[in-house]
Amino acid sequence: MPIVALLTDFGWQDPYTGIIKGVLLNTNPDLSIIDITHSVPPQDIYAAAFFLGMAVPYFPTNTIFLAVVDPGVGTERAALVCKIGTQYFVGPDNGIFTLVLQNARACVDPIISHRITEKRFMLPQISQTFHARDIFAPVAAHLSLGTPLDAFGPKHEPILLSFSSPQIHTDKIKGEVQYVDGFGNLITNIHRKHLNQLTNGPRIVEINDIRIPILTAYSQAEISMPLAIIGSYDLLEIAVRNGSAARFFHAQRGIPVIVAA
Amino acid sequence: MPIVALLTDFGWQDPYTGIIKGVLLNTNPDLSIIDITHSVPPQDIYAAAFFLGMAVPYFPTNTIFLAVVDPGVGTERAALVCKIGTQYFVGPDNGIFTLVLQNARACVDPIISHRITEKRFMLPQISQTFHARDIFAPVAAHLSLGTPLDAFGPKHEPILLSFSSPQIHTDKIKGEVQYVDGFGNLITNIHRKHLNQLTNGPRIVEINDIRIPILTAYSQAEISMPLAIIGSYDLLEIAVRNGSAARFFHAQRGIPVIVAA
Amino acid sequence: MPIVALLTDFGWQDPYTGIIKGVLLNTNPDLSIIDITHSVPPQDIYAAAFFLGMAVPYFPTNTIFLAVVDPGVGTERAALVCKIGTQYFVGPDNGIFTLVLQNARACVDPIISHRITEKRFMLPQISQTFHARDIFAPVAAHLSLGTPLDAFGPKHEPILLSFSSPQIHTDKIKGEVQYVDGFGNLITNIHRKHLNQLTNGPRIVEINDIRIPILTAYSQAEISMPLAIIGSYDLLEIAVRNGSAARFFHAQRGIPVIVAA
Repeated sequence: MPIVALLTDFGWQDPYTGIIKGVLLNTNPDLSIIDITHSVPPQDIYAAAFFLGMAVPYFPTNTIFLAVVDPGVGTERAALVCKIGTQYFVGPDNGIFTLVLQNARACVDPIISHRITEKRFMLPQISQTFHARDIFAPVAAHLSLGTPLDAFGPKHEPILLSFSSPQIHTDKIKGEVQYVDGFGNLITNIHRKHLNQLTNGPRIVEINDIRIPILTAYSQAEISMPLAIIGSYDLLEIAVRNGSAARFFHAQRGIPVIVAA
Repeated sequence: MPIVALLTDFGWQDPYTGIIKGVLLNTNPDLSIIDITHSVPPQDIYAAAFFLGMAVPYFPTNTIFLAVVDPGVGTERAALVCKIGTQYFVGPDNGIFTLVLQNARACVDPIISHRITEKRFMLPQISQTFHARDIFAPVAAHLSLGTPLDAFGPKHEPILLSFSSPQIHTDKIKGEVQYVDGFGNLITNIHRKHLNQLTNGPRIVEINDIRIPILTAYSQAEISMPLAIIGSYDLLEIAVRNGSAARFFHAQRGIPVIVAA
Repeated sequence: MPIVALLTDFGWQDPYTGIIKGVLLNTNPDLSIIDITHSVPPQDIYAAAFFLGMAVPYFPTNTIFLAVVDPGVGTERAALVCKIGTQYFVGPDNGIFTLVLQNARACVDPIISHRITEKRFMLPQISQTFHARDIFAPVAAHLSLGTPLDAFGPKHEPILLSFSSPQIHTDKIKGEVQYVDGFGNLITNIHRKHLNQLTNGPRIVEINDIRIPILTAYSQAEISMPLAIIGSYDLLEIAVRNGSAARFFHAQRGIPVIVAA
């Protein structure tokens, strides 16, 4: 069965995601529909792009990702359908696929991207406010039935968001918090491979003028004390044992994090 | 694979919805189970009926809807299994299917409705508090295996809730808020087709003595300012750009909304 | 299609559960994946064990339960794969399967339990913080493809949590609250069968020095008043009609509940 994986900011309260699933199944009843999450912070394209960048590599070949965080719905922003490597992506052209595209380019994976313009793949009536239902879901379902990308519309180069990269020196790395997760962990843009570039190895992490140790298990820190750790994304994370680093540091996306040798 | 679509007020915290899925799969392991939502406001039959009315048309032929918001569980209220148009419905007889039934009648779709009385389609032990598990889920699973409606019990006319209709004049429409969604949008009972009946077209919307414009995109309003818009349900909605209309207007279900020409 | 049922404390906000589903499907694309819940209170192994004990009996033969509440991740705690009765279980060896194991022993169901040590069934890189992704999900997927239990590692006796049993006298039962659900209902460890052992039948329930009646429907209590009822788990529950017993009694797990004849 073809797999369609959903990522939106529609929340779990309203029937909006249920309606999307109905539209998908109405065109192709033999779909396996997977929720990645519907709790992307409202209209936060950066968070959605980050989630996709982290989750996509774990999904199988031919998975169709339907990703809709769409503050520009109803404006002239393009609707996209892409093949990136061996997987498919449908959503608004607002940068939501940035990390997936950059990962593919780093691996020399092929990228094919089209603008969705053909009305015969959309619902008969297009609302101003719910293109996930009216455009993206029917296109994803048609894709799962084997419709080729060029049937949906002309070639189109996707917009990219700019994610800041850390500055790497031989004795220091200057990065920043790029995502705060549901537990209050601060996930930085400093990768395990960056730490390996420090001549004498990483020693200490500094955030908000507080210096904290780099450990290999939460349980090595005292209860309620902060630590840095290589997390499950292979990124340096700042946590508080049995607590919230976001609260401890009053931290949000963009605040600087320094690793010193 | 037969599709069973779930709508309940059981929330996402407890294992109750997981148990329902176990019961469904125990009778028919080849089901595709879809969550519409489990966050209907507790015991709010009107909200559940509204959600179903909006979501059902997007699902395929033969979908089985298992809808349980059931303040009368344990009392004498009937348990229902219906075929409405080309789709199936299982749940308590408390009005939860009102809008689906009224939409079907407006389209001259056939309606067949039976009371569930046959104990052989239920779990061996029936609790006082969880008929979704003990009665509705096993019946939905047997339905997916091809059991005909009249096997479950005798014919039974479903209860209808009374949803108020707007009053339409040539120069004015008097309606009301019928649902407040998770974003704080106020969804009225005034349909796009009602607006078309105003001789000079709709001009302005009045709510709580405040007059607001009718726009075609959220972005046409100033940040934090209210607007009216035809939303994704084809109903007039009142929103606040980047904010909550429910908070702005201290509004809840039932407050009057007037459209003037 | 093989069924994998998920139970975790990862919440619904982050993409962690989506990533687990990707890993499962990447090894076996023909899985039916069911969410029991992802809202187990963080790191609460007792709640997870309770949820499993209540939900597992409703699932079909051969269901694979992937249950991860794992405060010891990154330490030396074992990873488990078990066959209990006719169903399969994958998760950390921290007591999470206690009630399932005890129910099986009470029924003389066979139990086979192995420690997961074979790296060929894990992801190539094992993080310190996310074994659900790196170990448990790939093992569950291989299990669904028919890999026998002894391929994963050596036999291993699972840890058991100690759940307190009620004290049964001929005129009195002394039990306690073992779980507080999302509605604020207090679910005790006193089973329907215990109540039947009171010589003169149960008469009254006492909690926090307040005496409350045992009823058979919520609607038999006055609005906002407490009642005791045999709930859907066949356990004595304390509820407040249209309210929260947890708030009414300032109650939490472990507080005593007495049933008097």
